[in-house]
Amino acid sequence: MRNILIIGAGRSSSSLIKYLLDKSSEENLHITIGDLSLENAEEKINNHSNASAIALNVFDEDQRREAIKNADIVISMLPAHLHIEVARNCVEFNKHMVTASYISKEMQALDDEVKKKGLVFMNEIGLDPGIDHMSAMQVIDKINESGAKMLLFESFCGGLVAPESDDNLWNYKFTWNPRNVVLAGQGGASMFIQEGTYKYIPYHKLFRRTEFLTINGSGKFEAYANRDSLKYRSIYGLDNIPTMYRGTIRKVGFSRAWNVFVQLGMTDDSYTIEDSENMSYRDFTNLFLAYSPSDSVELKFRSYLKIDQDDVMWDKFLELDIFNPKKKVGLKNATPAQILQKILMDSWTLQPHDKDMIVMHHIFGYQNESSKHQIESSMVIKGDDQIYTAMAKTVGLPVAIATLRILNGDITTPGVQLPIKKEVYGPILKELEEYGINFVEKEVPYLGYNPESVKG
Amino acid sequence: MRNILIIGAGRSSSSLIKYLLDKSSEENLHITIGDLSLENAEEKINNHSNASAIALNVFDEDQRREAIKNADIVISMLPAHLHIEVARNCVEFNKHMVTASYISKEMQALDDEVKKKGLVFMNEIGLDPGIDHMSAMQVIDKINESGAKMLLFESFCGGLVAPESDDNLWNYKFTWNPRNVVLAGQGGASMFIQEGTYKYIPYHKLFRRTEFLTINGSGKFEAYANRDSLKYRSIYGLDNIPTMYRGTIRKVGFSRAWNVFVQLGMTDDSYTIEDSENMSYRDFTNLFLAYSPSDSVELKFRSYLKIDQDDVMWDKFLELDIFNPKKKVGLKNATPAQILQKILMDSWTLQPHDKDMIVMHHIFGYQNESSKHQIESSMVIKGDDQIYTAMAKTVGLPVAIATLRILNGDITTPGVQLPIKKEVYGPILKELEEYGINFVEKEVPYLGYNPESVKG
Repeated sequence: MRNILIIGAGRSSSSLIKYLLDKSSEENLHITIGDLSLENAEEKINNHSNASAIALNVFDEDQRREAIKNADIVISMLPAHLHIEVARNCVEFNKHMVTASYISKEMQALDDEVKKKGLVFMNEIGLDPGIDHMSAMQVIDKINESGAKMLLFESFCGGLVAPESDDNLWNYKFTWNPRNVVLAGQGGASMFIQEGTYKYIPYHKLFRRTEFLTINGSGKFEAYANRDSLKYRSIYGLDNIPTMYRGTIRKVGFSRAWNVFVQLGMTDDSYTIEDSENMSYRDFTNLFLAYSPSDSVELKFRSYLKIDQDDVMWDKFLELDIFNPKKKVGLKNATPAQILQKILMDSWTLQPHDKDMIVMHHIFGYQNESSKHQIESSMVIKGDDQIYTAMAKTVGLPVAIATLRILNGDITTPGVQLPIKKEVYGPILKELEEYGINFVEKEVPYLGYNPESVKG
Repeated sequence: MRNILIIGAGRSSSSLIKYLLDKSSEENLHITIGDLSLENAEEKINNHSNASAIALNVFDEDQRREAIKNADIVISMLPAHLHIEVARNCVEFNKHMVTASYISKEMQALDDEVKKKGLVFMNEIGLDPGIDHMSAMQVIDKINESGAKMLLFESFCGGLVAPESDDNLWNYKFTWNPRNVVLAGQGGASMFIQEGTYKYIPYHKLFRRTEFLTINGSGKFEAYANRDSLKYRSIYGLDNIPTMYRGTIRKVGFSRAWNVFVQLGMTDDSYTIEDSENMSYRDFTNLFLAYSPSDSVELKFRSYLKIDQDDVMWDKFLELDIFNPKKKVGLKNATPAQILQKILMDSWTLQPHDKDMIVMHHIFGYQNESSKHQIESSMVIKGDDQIYTAMAKTVGLPVAIATLRILNGDITTPGVQLPIKKEVYGPILKELEEYGINFVEKEVPYLGYNPESVKG
C-alpha cells in the first residue's frame, strides 16, 4: 500500500481525487485527504474504501508533521503561499511533493536539499502553470530538434463560461477565485517583447491593448498581456527569441468594458472606503465621479468614460445594477476591489446548471533552412458539471498523473522543478488525451509581427 | 552666545541661513552649519564671523552626537526620512528641534519624552507644510471665534516658474526636486470630500480631474488633488466640514499634457528597463506604444493618446524632443520615471537668470447666523535670484523665525508639534510680512459646490 496525502480539498481537487481513487485498487494506493473541514474531506472521498479523511489545520505543526510522516508522497492544493511549510516537512521526512503553483523563492531555496535526498518536488503542474508549460515545450522541443530556429512564441489561456451557459452581456462568469479576477493585471506594468522591441503596458492601459485570436470551432477571443512574459524566455530556453508574449483570454468586448472599472478606480485594493457598509451600489459608483449638485450618476458616468448611450458597453453596466440606490454594499471598511467583487458576484456567479470552459492557445513561429513557418495549437475543454469543472480537470489531472508517475518511479530526476523536460511532459500529455485534454495543432502561414521586415 | 546647529546646507537653506546670520550679532547667535560637503557649508556662511562650517556625515553617530551636544537648538534640513536619528539625539541631549517636514510616525512617537523634557520639536514649518497650515488656521480660527460655522476649505499650492522666466510650452520648470515632480500623485488614490460626498481619484485619472482657480493679478491656474485631503479635517479641527480639498497648482494646460506621460506609463518607478543605457529618447517613447513594422512613433503616439495634429499639446511633446533618435538615455538599468526625469531636465532646468514663483491659494466657506460667506486668500511670491528663490524664502524663513522664537522663549509649549496654535502662527505670519510674504484676502460671493442644495 502506497500512501498519498492530499492537503486541501477545495473545488479544484475533485478531478485529482477521482483519478487517484479510480486507480487506487489497481495501483495499490491509499489516499488521505486532509482539510481544515473534516466534512469537506469526507464529502470528497464519498466512503471510498481506499481513502480516509482527516481534519488537518496546516498551521498546526504537530498535526501537519504527523500527516506528512505517514505519507509516501504529498500533494499540496493549498493557496500558494502555504506550500512552503509543507515542503519543509517533506524534506524533513524524505517525501516527494507535488503542487500546481509557481515555484516561490522559498521553494526554490530547498532545491539543494531536495536533490541531496533524491526527492522529486514537482511544481507548476496544473493548468496555467502546468499544461501551458508542457504543451508549449513539446512543440518547442520538436522545432529545436528539427534544427529550426524559434522566432516567436505567444501563449494565451483563459477560464471562461461555456457557450451554453454564456447568458450575460459580459460573456463572463467567475469560474475561479473572483478576487484574482478583480485584481488581475495589478502590481506593475506588463512586459513582453515583439520583434526584438521591448513593450511595457501600465495597468491602466492593459485592457485597451488587447490582441485578438480566432480559435477554430470556438470563434473569436481577445487577450490582454500577462504581467511578465520576459522571464519565460529563460524558462523555455528561448533567451534570444524576438517575440515572446503571454496573455489572458476573454470573450471579445470584455476587456474594453472592464477597463471602465479600472479607469474609475474601482479595482483598487489599497485603501478602504469610509462608511462603505451603508453605501448603496449607486453611492459606491458615485465615489469615483466628480461632484455635481444636480447631474445624475448615470450621465456623469457616461460623460466621464465617453460611453455613447447606444453602445452595448453601457448595457453591460446597467446589467450589473451599479446605479441601484437601494442595494446596499453591506461590507465594513471595504476596499473598492472588495465592493466591486461583491457587486460582480451578484451577476457572475455560476448557477447550478452552468458549465465552465478553459481555452488555451499557443502560436509558434520558426525558421528552417528554406522558410518561415507558424503553428497554432489550441485546447478547448468544457466542464462536465459544477464538480468536474474544466478548471478541476485541467488543474487536477496533471497533478494526479504526475503524482502516480513519481510514486511509480517513472519520474526520478530529483529537485525542485517544473514540467519542462520531455521525459516528464511526454507521458503526462499522452495520458491527458485519454481524458479529452488535447491540443489541436495546425500549420498556418507565417505572420509574425513583422510582415515586411521593416523595423518600427 | 546661543548655538544654533543647521544640519544640511542644500538649496532650500539659503534664506534660512541669511536670516539667522543677519540677526546673529543683535541676538547673540552662533550658527554652525553641518553638511556632508564642508565646501557647501563654507560657501553658505561666506566667512561670517558668527558662523562656522563643519563636515557632518549624519550617518556617523559619534559626529552627529558631538555636533548636537554643542548646540542649543537644532534645525534639520535633511531629507525627511533622516530627521529621526537627529531627533533621538536631541532628546538625549535636551535640545529643541525644528524641521520643515511632515511629522513621521517615528517622530510622533517621541512626543511623550519630548514633553517630559520640556522640549519644543516644531515640524511642518516650511512652506507646504508650513505657511499653508499657519495661514489657513489664522482664518479658520477667526471664523470659529466669530461663532460662524466652517462649510468649506480648499487649499492649493504650487512651485512654478515666474512669468518673466516662463518661456516653454508647458509653462513649467523644475524649481524643486525633479524626482518628486515626476512621481507626484503616485502611491494610491487621491481622496477628499465635497458637500459631504467622499471622492476618490485613481492616479491615472488625477491629471484629468483638475479644478481651475483665478488669482487676482496672477491669472488663471489649475490644480490637481493631493493624495489625502481627508486627514486635514482632524488636523485643522474641522472634523465635520462637508468640503475639504487640497491641491497642487500648475499653469493651465500642464496637467492635461502631463497625463500623457501617466497614460503611457513613463512615470512608473517600479521596474527597470532592459538595456536602458543605449536607448535613444525615441526608443524610450516607443517602449510604451504598440509594435508596428512600419508606422512612425509619432503617429502611434498621437493615435494612441488621441492628440490632434493641431493641438498645442502635441507641440509640448515635440518641444521635449522625446522622438529624437540620436539623443541617448545614458542611464543604466533605469526606471521609466528616472529616464523621463532626465528628458525633462534637458528642457525644464532653471537657467541662471530664471526666477521661480510660489503660489498659494485658500478658499474658506462659512455660515454665520444670517448668511453664507466665502473668503479667498492668496499668496504669490517670486524668487530674487537662483539663491534666494521663492522656494528658499518660503521654506526657510518660517523655519528661521520659529527657531529664534523657540530659542528666545517665545514658543514654550513642549512636544512634537506643527504650527497650528495661534500663539505660534500669529507672530510668525506677522514677521513674514516684513519679508514680503503675505496673503491678500478678499470676500467673494459664496459659491460652495452646491448652489441649489441638491444632493448629487
